[in-house]
Amino acid sequence: MYQNEIIIDGLQYCYWDRSYFQSLQKSGVTTVHATLVYHENARETLTRFAEWNLLFERNADLIMPVMSMDDVREAKRLGKVGIFFGAQNCSPIDDEIGLVEVMRKQGLLIMQLTYNNQSLLATGCYEKDDAGMTRFGKQVIEEMNRVGMVIDMSHSAERSTLEAIDLSSRPICISHANPTKAHAALRNKSGDVIQALTARGGLLGFSLYPFHLPDGSKCSLDTFCQMIADTANEFGVEHLAIGSDLCLNQPQSVLDWMRNGKWSKSPDYGEGSASNAGWPAALPWFPDSSGMNNIYQGLRDIGFNEAEVTAVMGRNWLNFLEAGLKPTH
Amino acid sequence: MYQNEIIIDGLQYCYWDRSYFQSLQKSGVTTVHATLVYHENARETLTRFAEWNLLFERNADLIMPVMSMDDVREAKRLGKVGIFFGAQNCSPIDDEIGLVEVMRKQGLLIMQLTYNNQSLLATGCYEKDDAGMTRFGKQVIEEMNRVGMVIDMSHSAERSTLEAIDLSSRPICISHANPTKAHAALRNKSGDVIQALTARGGLLGFSLYPFHLPDGSKCSLDTFCQMIADTANEFGVEHLAIGSDLCLNQPQSVLDWMRNGKWSKSPDYGEGSASNAGWPAALPWFPDSSGMNNIYQGLRDIGFNEAEVTAVMGRNWLNFLEAGLKPTH
Repeated sequence: MYQNEIIIDGLQYCYWDRSYFQSLQKSGVTTVHATLVYHENARETLTRFAEWNLLFERNADLIMPVMSMDDVREAKRLGKVGIFFGAQNCSPIDDEIGLVEVMRKQGLLIMQLTYNNQSLLATGCYEKDDAGMTRFGKQVIEEMNRVGMVIDMSHSAERSTLEAIDLSSRPICISHANPTKAHAALRNKSGDVIQALTARGGLLGFSLYPFHLPDGSKCSLDTFCQMIADTANEFGVEHLAIGSDLCLNQPQSVLDWMRNGKWSKSPDYGEGSASNAGWPAALPWFPDSSGMNNIYQGLRDIGFNEAEVTAVMGRNWLNFLEAGLKPTH
Repeated sequence: MYQNEIIIDGLQYCYWDRSYFQSLQKSGVTTVHATLVYHENARETLTRFAEWNLLFERNADLIMPVMSMDDVREAKRLGKVGIFFGAQNCSPIDDEIGLVEVMRKQGLLIMQLTYNNQSLLATGCYEKDDAGMTRFGKQVIEEMNRVGMVIDMSHSAERSTLEAIDLSSRPICISHANPTKAHAALRNKSGDVIQALTARGGLLGFSLYPFHLPDGSKCSLDTFCQMIADTANEFGVEHLAIGSDLCLNQPQSVLDWMRNGKWSKSPDYGEGSASNAGWPAALPWFPDSSGMNNIYQGLRDIGFNEAEVTAVMGRNWLNFLEAGLKPTH
């Protein structure tokens, strides 16, 4: 359906193996922002990079690493799936400002400043109180701006997010979250945040994770597309994209790791609960990356024109990252 | 004197600051192989990279990072000093094969497999017994060959060195050592080693460290140049270069770190002794990088023609690294 277009999924954390790469290639997605780490520190992050290098070496017919948007175009030309990396937390830089540049050079193109909890940089969306950007956090924003590492506030709390948008000299992203207006959840974003984000040239990636959606796993394709249409009407379609948050073929232990890392002795259930501790059921119209075809069609059906749909499905990410990844000096 | 030539010093570990970079630039040296680490593990190596990134940022008018020989030519064009990195030990990869590629990508272009002691890869030159390349060591050689990280056996023992030369599918280097024939020292290299090294296209960098020289700090320029001439006659000038081992402006604590790392409780004196534990006195004709001018002239005076001298002073390193840094796949 969208065979001539560049399609970018702005967040996935699947079980990365050859059979998944084959399904990704088949789905027609050009490039995926893959979560490299959740809670891994600098040293552990190197091992994640090493594991990915081996995946690239052994699946070179299917995937290729993406360090710039030229690589995305090259992936499209070659019919391969481009992969670029982001961290869902600031753990890869430990407590060291110089590791921003080191990790950027290694291929970490995007970094969230927090993952649900308070970090050394900012406050996560599950904390009760949000004191905003920390002293270290302000320096890290400046350094990320300098080296061209994109700031992502998907899992951050409101005040921290607003401050990050304001402090950053470059547009930032919320790679995977939905408007609170569509579904009230700690992980979703207020109108104030989306207003500030988009006014500064930032990008919002709509999430397909059922906990972020109205009606959860029963959310219809039409409801999802209507949410995008409403947001486009209010803030402009040029700021909107997809960050599916697809976590396919992952065992429960990975969900536990995402939620608990090494910080919690008693189980934390994140967006779930003790009685609903597992992965949410998949959306029938988004069982895997091939669901991007359904979104494409759903957006057309709801009234977006072709140019708008292709912008949301990939070109907005492409333009945002093209600018955001350039070092300033 | 050699203002139109590319001059490469194949090993230095000086106190890297702005005033030293100024003296380097003034000396006319185009590019220096800087030792990044001696005993630092993977995590600590990241901090060394971060420290260098800051030096590059703050001294961008004087120095620039070198990732390929095109960068060396660019440095020459810009009148800056190019810096590329090597490790004197295999400590940056911990015990993890995948870190070879990670460190290569970060800018570690050369790695010694041992530093005086037994390592996880091979035997160092101060060990009593040399059992040759280890199981891990053989895999690391193959991986270094694959990603284009140059193998350096300067501080390795004889058998390990011969095995590394033989096992490696690509030429290796001994970046800084002299022939045992000129001066018997555990750190210097036998005729067998130099024969095997050069027969496989490898490169020997002559050291200016007084402990490696006949007559130590009293070694004359003429004696030094005669040593190069004798080696050229026996093995071919195209395999010879300079690796000065210059350690300027470093305190005693750095010498202690080089010799003892974290492995020794009782002081190890390396090539020194309890009664001679300090830095050796500098050679009067090689007080700093400007001494490269004296070597240039000394080699001319002893009978090398212009093309031979410029090969030894830089072009041999350039050609060797141009080939050696290319990944094979």
